[in-house]
Amino acid sequence: MASAASHDGLAIGPGDIERAAARLEGVAHRTPVRTSRTADERCGGALYFKCENLQRMGAFKFRGAYNALAQFSPAQRRAGVIAYSSGNHAQAIALAARLLDMPSVLVMPVDSPRSKLAATRGYQAGRRGSEIVLYDRFREDREAIGARLAAERGMTLVPPYDDAQVMAGQGTAAAELIDEVGPLDLLVVCVGGGGLIAGSAVAAHARVPGIEVVGVEPEAGNDTQLSLARGEIVHIETPHTIADGAQTQHSGRLTFPVIQRLVARIETVSDEQLVRTMRFFAERMKMVVEPTGCLAAAALLEGTIDVHGRRVGVIVSGGNVDLARYAGFLVD
Amino acid sequence: MASAASHDGLAIGPGDIERAAARLEGVAHRTPVRTSRTADERCGGALYFKCENLQRMGAFKFRGAYNALAQFSPAQRRAGVIAYSSGNHAQAIALAARLLDMPSVLVMPVDSPRSKLAATRGYQAGRRGSEIVLYDRFREDREAIGARLAAERGMTLVPPYDDAQVMAGQGTAAAELIDEVGPLDLLVVCVGGGGLIAGSAVAAHARVPGIEVVGVEPEAGNDTQLSLARGEIVHIETPHTIADGAQTQHSGRLTFPVIQRLVARIETVSDEQLVRTMRFFAERMKMVVEPTGCLAAAALLEGTIDVHGRRVGVIVSGGNVDLARYAGFLVD
Repeated sequence: MASAASHDGLAIGPGDIERAAARLEGVAHRTPVRTSRTADERCGGALYFKCENLQRMGAFKFRGAYNALAQFSPAQRRAGVIAYSSGNHAQAIALAARLLDMPSVLVMPVDSPRSKLAATRGYQAGRRGSEIVLYDRFREDREAIGARLAAERGMTLVPPYDDAQVMAGQGTAAAELIDEVGPLDLLVVCVGGGGLIAGSAVAAHARVPGIEVVGVEPEAGNDTQLSLARGEIVHIETPHTIADGAQTQHSGRLTFPVIQRLVARIETVSDEQLVRTMRFFAERMKMVVEPTGCLAAAALLEGTIDVHGRRVGVIVSGGNVDLARYAGFLVD
Repeated sequence: MASAASHDGLAIGPGDIERAAARLEGVAHRTPVRTSRTADERCGGALYFKCENLQRMGAFKFRGAYNALAQFSPAQRRAGVIAYSSGNHAQAIALAARLLDMPSVLVMPVDSPRSKLAATRGYQAGRRGSEIVLYDRFREDREAIGARLAAERGMTLVPPYDDAQVMAGQGTAAAELIDEVGPLDLLVVCVGGGGLIAGSAVAAHARVPGIEVVGVEPEAGNDTQLSLARGEIVHIETPHTIADGAQTQHSGRLTFPVIQRLVARIETVSDEQLVRTMRFFAERMKMVVEPTGCLAAAALLEGTIDVHGRRVGVIVSGGNVDLARYAGFLVD
């Protein structure tokens, strides 16, 4: 799906976020914003956690998926949607397709968390023409598989991040956050393919001119950090990190220009830092957050980003993690 | 602390709850009320979860402790407070004492969750005259230890449940829940010594005449259920259950008459049902809930209480559980 309008050369503008918000009204949760005295004392700033782990299907991805599918033509709806994803985008597409009454085909890695496969199958249940196609993320090209199946079946492919309507939908979380807590000095967002941070940056700059937007990638998969340094999209090998939602090999052609323009910089955190942050969320905030969902908070709680005296928005992107795997993270 | 007024023969009345709410305003969190499509589909009713696991120090106990300590005389404040507790009441007293600038002595079982001991010590830190006294809950009488230390040191003893101001404070959670979501048909509350359910029942009946209030105890420790059947307080051996907050041996002299008058009945759930409920909260609602905090929800999710077509309030009482122990519950 191409964006009709161009916005200063970028794929989306503030108006796309507002229209996405209107489509999501009453469908997506307006997720809670939480605070933690302990986190504030540790960082020296005022942190506002936007809890997208409490979003429908457990992650912000529902926002972008629903915003994209809600704009399908009647013919597109009949044929259905196809998507590839390491997990949360698949669940999001499956749930949005169910709500909008269309078939869905999901291309997912064979090593996806079992909980994500099960949840996706649950959303597809009883929907004729719906299925999950498994692939090996270290050997096969999911984009090629998705494109081939889309052509064969006449279904519309909705990529996980490099799509204007997906980006616009993802930006609604940051919009809600700022509308609720007021102007922020800094917004910290995890980075996989860049859909969330691109949408967030557009929404944030429209509300708070001069706001600093910082992205956080896993140390093992810092392709966007490398891309910003080189001034062009850098491709890397599929990174080995516990942050399965950020195992992307490169930014998108639509997301990267937004990141170049509106994101101040990218920081990285280690898997060990993600684990400590997961424990912090469980112990102090009583929340289950998946590894990828800990990226932004880890950069703050571990001192990578200095926030003394600043008002800081933190996107907690999701909470979908197999309980057995999660239990393993909680113990030494 | 004796209650000044008698309320139809009970230790507290609706006015005590309202005054407690005023004292807690801006000090305790007004905790969120959450819902779950999955829970509603499974039960056939509309469940409203009052999330006291997100209360300050991680449990409803802060409400009662602060309400009691806020009414100390200047002399009582100088001498400080003493309390015995399996954990959450200790943390609550330690935090309330810190906020009100008085010393605290806590009598806690040697086998208390390490996280509760550590948190209590943290709240006491730097407060002269504060300490933790450990005892063996299967061999020693904590009430006797508490009474002796209180006499020796001139400190005021605040019992964990059998105190009018503690009961009144605990009732503010149910009051907030009903004020937020409107009239309920049923309110389900966990039962240890009965402070929470007594306060909840007074608050609920004052708001919704005819509301059914049901208590839930661990199967292994159903002393209140036995007491209601016999018409007098029954003492049992310290029960062996994972619900460490409900390992009480008997209802209180003040709480039991309120339960007799305003609680319809007591149901019980097994430790296995508590574990399944803990997993439900983690997987579907992304919340960490301690075993005792799962009692009320377990009776609903496991079908012990039929709620088809009814609007049901569920108190999620706390979220304080050692991460290693919690991890053990999450895996088979």
